[in-house]
Amino acid sequence: MSILVVGSVAFDSVETPFGRVEEVLGGSGTYFATSASFFTDVQLVAVVGEDFPEEHLDFLRSRRVDLGGLKTVPGRTFRWRGRYDYDLNEAHTLETQLNVFETFRPELPQGYEDARFVFLANIDPELQLEVLKQVKRPELVACDTMNFWIEGKREALLKTLRHVDILLINEGEARQLAEEPNLVKAARTILAMGPKTLVVKRGEYGVLMFHEHSVFSAPAYPLEEVFDPTGAGDTFGGGFTGYLAATGNLSEASLRKAIVFGSVMASFNVENFSLNRMKTLEYPEIEARFRKFELLTEFEGLS
Amino acid sequence: MSILVVGSVAFDSVETPFGRVEEVLGGSGTYFATSASFFTDVQLVAVVGEDFPEEHLDFLRSRRVDLGGLKTVPGRTFRWRGRYDYDLNEAHTLETQLNVFETFRPELPQGYEDARFVFLANIDPELQLEVLKQVKRPELVACDTMNFWIEGKREALLKTLRHVDILLINEGEARQLAEEPNLVKAARTILAMGPKTLVVKRGEYGVLMFHEHSVFSAPAYPLEEVFDPTGAGDTFGGGFTGYLAATGNLSEASLRKAIVFGSVMASFNVENFSLNRMKTLEYPEIEARFRKFELLTEFEGLS
Repeated sequence: MSILVVGSVAFDSVETPFGRVEEVLGGSGTYFATSASFFTDVQLVAVVGEDFPEEHLDFLRSRRVDLGGLKTVPGRTFRWRGRYDYDLNEAHTLETQLNVFETFRPELPQGYEDARFVFLANIDPELQLEVLKQVKRPELVACDTMNFWIEGKREALLKTLRHVDILLINEGEARQLAEEPNLVKAARTILAMGPKTLVVKRGEYGVLMFHEHSVFSAPAYPLEEVFDPTGAGDTFGGGFTGYLAATGNLSEASLRKAIVFGSVMASFNVENFSLNRMKTLEYPEIEARFRKFELLTEFEGLS
Repeated sequence: MSILVVGSVAFDSVETPFGRVEEVLGGSGTYFATSASFFTDVQLVAVVGEDFPEEHLDFLRSRRVDLGGLKTVPGRTFRWRGRYDYDLNEAHTLETQLNVFETFRPELPQGYEDARFVFLANIDPELQLEVLKQVKRPELVACDTMNFWIEGKREALLKTLRHVDILLINEGEARQLAEEPNLVKAARTILAMGPKTLVVKRGEYGVLMFHEHSVFSAPAYPLEEVFDPTGAGDTFGGGFTGYLAATGNLSEASLRKAIVFGSVMASFNVENFSLNRMKTLEYPEIEARFRKFELLTEFEGLS
């Protein structure tokens, strides 16, 4: 099955200890859509300004991403500027220019309202809810968010969460959303807000998934070169939800496998700036790294 | 096979967000010996002062720990005072009184020199080396250390490491020892210093083991109540090395299983102050939690 995503398409300017880039392709919707496109067809709902180059649109089209829901409007595209220090787990936002996102009201093109798999990438929870209202009968709604919305639009976010099946957030945000320092307790609080599944992203420490009464832990792939963590969470979300949509299987076993596929995708993305690694990635590399995750985690059980 | 450990036996005073204790039983040797004793016989080499109560010695004896190498000398027992904030991964040392450890020179009692499994718990690397010199032909030498010695006695530590098979240190210390921020590169540097295996302890994020060309990742057990992380690393070391000594099997599969047993032991220890949880722990609980680690990490491979 295909997957509908609403999120940002942006120009990112990023500085890490290993280099810097200016105004490169970025945005939560872009990373998600590209990553998910390795598994299934993607419909992208977003907005860009008139300054957005055809070259980037061509790239997305080349990746099976349907751009029927990508509006081009007068004005400038969304811009983000950030910096990472040696602790690559933490992004320091230097500047955010909402630009065309300030007045964006998502409207689904005809046919999109039948979407069965929906991913609400990290944008204003009010916009997330607006998209959701236009989808008739989604089978799975997954949602990402960030501290900015937890602090600034808590009520809207809680409203959106009531319609969400799977919430993906990072560790500090899970604690912040639940107002509870212990992660296991925080997960229980969040699962009472609506989602049936909580995926806690821990950067280089991997992922914890809380689902009903079980917990699944997956490591991050230990890399010698982490160039740029920008988009790692959205790329994870794309692999995770993309795999689920491709198989249509929402069993716990499938969710776990999806977590590993998400981790695989994120591990590639951080190897280079922007979506550069995604542009050269081939599906056999994904399978090969999935097998490396098996080797990384396997141990003999008790007899 | 039995295991010989040299380390500290101490009085700890600890404050966490969940309570505080004064002058309770602690020390790297104590935690290690108690944890390892669930798997095999332990010979403890250490020193205490005349203020050390018979009650604590009785506890260690009750746990198959041979105290033939535990000297009681005039003076006060080693004391440590520390505090943890909500980030339980980081201990803030408030006070260290070496006391009887200032003049301690370990001398192995007769019979101990034949030890096949040796654990050099976290003490002065010069003392670690002195113990090692007295052991005739060890089959396995594992070693723990800390930032204090990496900074203060780097040369002595590097000398000790040349005789070590398995080094266990925490993540920040691995980076510090290798002088390299990337953990995968740091591991390669450390494996060139002598150890064939590097076990990186990451607190609530689990453990990474670097062994020859493979990496193994094990999570920490997600707990709702972490009362006191003091001794978690030594308790991990006790379960890890204790299991290896008990089986005598040093294959990679056995090392991985040992990592999980170590993680199981640490997960129990943090549930209460001092060695309180170790005092009530029964072996069937260890096996039950091992199986929970299997459930926590398992996923279907690619077909």
